[in-house]
Amino acid sequence: MLMYDVIRKKRDGLELSDDEIRFFISEYTIGNIPDYQAAALMMAIFYKGMTDREIVTLTQAMAHSGDTVDLSQFGGLTADKHSTGGVGDKTSMIVAPIAASLGCKVSKMSGRGLGHTGGTVDKLESIPGYNTALTQDEFLSQVEKIGIAVIGQTGNLTPADKKLYSLRDVTATIDSIPLITSSIMSKKLAAGSHTIVLDVKVGSGAFMKDITQARVLAEKMVSIAKLCGRKASAVLTDMDTPLGMAVGNSLEVIEAVNVLKGNSHGPLREICLALAAEMLAQTFSYSREKAIKLCRESLDSQKAYSKMLEWISAQGGDVSYIENTEKFPKAKISKELLAQKDGYISSIDAEGIGMAAVELGAGRKKAGEAIDHSAGIIFEKTFGDRVSRGDCLCRIYTNDCSAVPQASEKILQAVSISDSIPVKNPLIYDIIN
Amino acid sequence: MLMYDVIRKKRDGLELSDDEIRFFISEYTIGNIPDYQAAALMMAIFYKGMTDREIVTLTQAMAHSGDTVDLSQFGGLTADKHSTGGVGDKTSMIVAPIAASLGCKVSKMSGRGLGHTGGTVDKLESIPGYNTALTQDEFLSQVEKIGIAVIGQTGNLTPADKKLYSLRDVTATIDSIPLITSSIMSKKLAAGSHTIVLDVKVGSGAFMKDITQARVLAEKMVSIAKLCGRKASAVLTDMDTPLGMAVGNSLEVIEAVNVLKGNSHGPLREICLALAAEMLAQTFSYSREKAIKLCRESLDSQKAYSKMLEWISAQGGDVSYIENTEKFPKAKISKELLAQKDGYISSIDAEGIGMAAVELGAGRKKAGEAIDHSAGIIFEKTFGDRVSRGDCLCRIYTNDCSAVPQASEKILQAVSISDSIPVKNPLIYDIIN
Repeated sequence: MLMYDVIRKKRDGLELSDDEIRFFISEYTIGNIPDYQAAALMMAIFYKGMTDREIVTLTQAMAHSGDTVDLSQFGGLTADKHSTGGVGDKTSMIVAPIAASLGCKVSKMSGRGLGHTGGTVDKLESIPGYNTALTQDEFLSQVEKIGIAVIGQTGNLTPADKKLYSLRDVTATIDSIPLITSSIMSKKLAAGSHTIVLDVKVGSGAFMKDITQARVLAEKMVSIAKLCGRKASAVLTDMDTPLGMAVGNSLEVIEAVNVLKGNSHGPLREICLALAAEMLAQTFSYSREKAIKLCRESLDSQKAYSKMLEWISAQGGDVSYIENTEKFPKAKISKELLAQKDGYISSIDAEGIGMAAVELGAGRKKAGEAIDHSAGIIFEKTFGDRVSRGDCLCRIYTNDCSAVPQASEKILQAVSISDSIPVKNPLIYDIIN
Repeated sequence: MLMYDVIRKKRDGLELSDDEIRFFISEYTIGNIPDYQAAALMMAIFYKGMTDREIVTLTQAMAHSGDTVDLSQFGGLTADKHSTGGVGDKTSMIVAPIAASLGCKVSKMSGRGLGHTGGTVDKLESIPGYNTALTQDEFLSQVEKIGIAVIGQTGNLTPADKKLYSLRDVTATIDSIPLITSSIMSKKLAAGSHTIVLDVKVGSGAFMKDITQARVLAEKMVSIAKLCGRKASAVLTDMDTPLGMAVGNSLEVIEAVNVLKGNSHGPLREICLALAAEMLAQTFSYSREKAIKLCRESLDSQKAYSKMLEWISAQGGDVSYIENTEKFPKAKISKELLAQKDGYISSIDAEGIGMAAVELGAGRKKAGEAIDHSAGIIFEKTFGDRVSRGDCLCRIYTNDCSAVPQASEKILQAVSISDSIPVKNPLIYDIIN
């Protein structure tokens, strides 16, 4: 088989055979197909698309290009959640213990933050002692014992996707539904969970800027997951403004803990309930109503909070920080940013806020950079709030005083204040399964 | 400027600026832009095309990516001919001396054969002593003195095109009108002639298989050449069957010499007259009728033949071989191939014949391979001829007896014999200028 013929076939809009797709993935992974041929194929797929059968084969070939996690010992109880990435997105830390408290086996591998979006692994590492690098045995036995473990990506998972994603990133071939779908779903397949719930973010701070596109992606991911033999559901959630009030690692842990303690009843709690309920509903074939009710009870009875303590403790984290979040170290510099005029907060550009948080030290511009767990932003006001000139909009935290002017300017630019009451986006656009 | 942004812009169907195109070519040529990004751009251009302004800028940027030949000393008298490549195409050896005999300055750089198509440089090297590697000074002073010189490609001409063409060849992005046009025209611009006549071959043995596509390419090349300040004309000629009766290097020289001596009046002569007349008409602003008449007189009076002798002699070739073509060494093996049935020759697949000639030693599968100048095929019958079973169709020549069975089979497969008189293609489909 010649890669030239594979490119040419897709270029001409024809359907690739399973053998052709598997040939491409296996030979590309081991370096027998050069990047330039892969780039040409990616661009042809960008224009010509792929049928569901092609996407399933591509997804499975990428899932099996490296190590896979075997969760068969847990039967059909395993459930995973994946977010397409946003700003202030601390849902995993809340959703995972809710679902685990209700019988799901949550074996999660999470990522680190890059650019304007944060990563769960960075957030969890702000808890002293928390170990994100369990061995495979430790990981599985913790899931067995307490129903939950959250670690960083381990082993050689989906090397084909890693290689292809890096290539797509520099060849303007990221924005392709078949390629996004296969990239995300291959990682989820390799990670092994039987139920996959997708949090598809929509808005200025998300990869998908508009609801139509996001819905197409969500539907495609759900249908491909099902064709690959998994249970799946996607929740389309708003990411025009950052999620919740905190952006930054320990700051987000504290906000998540507050939701789990039952002290917070805003949009963050609502989205977490919807996501956890989907995990439950899919795993146990509950109705959505029943699943939501159970999740709400778990939060209200602090069952989910107890599960979090159990989980953090099992992974070596100092739970006294969770019990008393005042213990988290504070950044040396804290500064209030004030409203420059009277009006209503009509938008908070999530991407701008995410980049400001990076400036403050909460994130990284390049993979591998160190981060400051205490840095970030806590909003005092949010979308739709009435403000007067001089009111505190938010407080920024950093240990790098040189970052303050630029980050402050970025934040003030990201927050728009209008004279009239703005129209609010739905928090949850839709649930697809 | 970021290559990513250039790819993305073209991917989205937008027009690239001159700066973006020049940035791509200059940075790609020196290796600062990797092949995978270039491949993605090529595929985007394959789908989204280019405006004439983009093609002009791309063509000029590639023309100036390396050395260029300065022919300004000859004013507007320089004329070049380019063929898109065919089988048995020995027109350059005939057209160049006709045009030179009538006042054109023909400074030609020709290529070598590869795959099923032959190359003028290989053909000329079958003349003992002929030197295809003149220095720049020798080349120009010969053109000055006798009006004609034909050498191999020299210096670092259009390195951007060389690199891009190799890349397109393995990424299924050859078949793109803007990319073919810029590739061909950049080489012609760099070679310096003021008049450019294109022989665009159409048919099974040509790159362009159908007339509609070929016409689009011809029109685009002519208009781009004009936008680049050159005079240009394209002749659309048939390449469903090989051109003339001989395929193979010294065999084609002999056939060309026969046309120049006035001993041959078939399709080859007609196509050469049309091409030479276009060179003349464009260069001197003659009417097509006047130009044809002058070219025919040059052939009939042996002015063109004398010019050939002068040219071959100036480049060190032994003209006794031209004067008496019997002197060319004969291949050791010669074999007649016979018609297998009665009927009319209804097609001679040029590509198949070209590949059979390669088998016999007349061409090369890979660049750099040695060739056998005496090997090849001479047809006794051609398209439309009535044959009886057992008639000699052609004679093959080779020094490699192991090649005979396979080459014979290829040739017999390439020649179709039908019961009814076949419909002939036009020899010249159109002339575009």
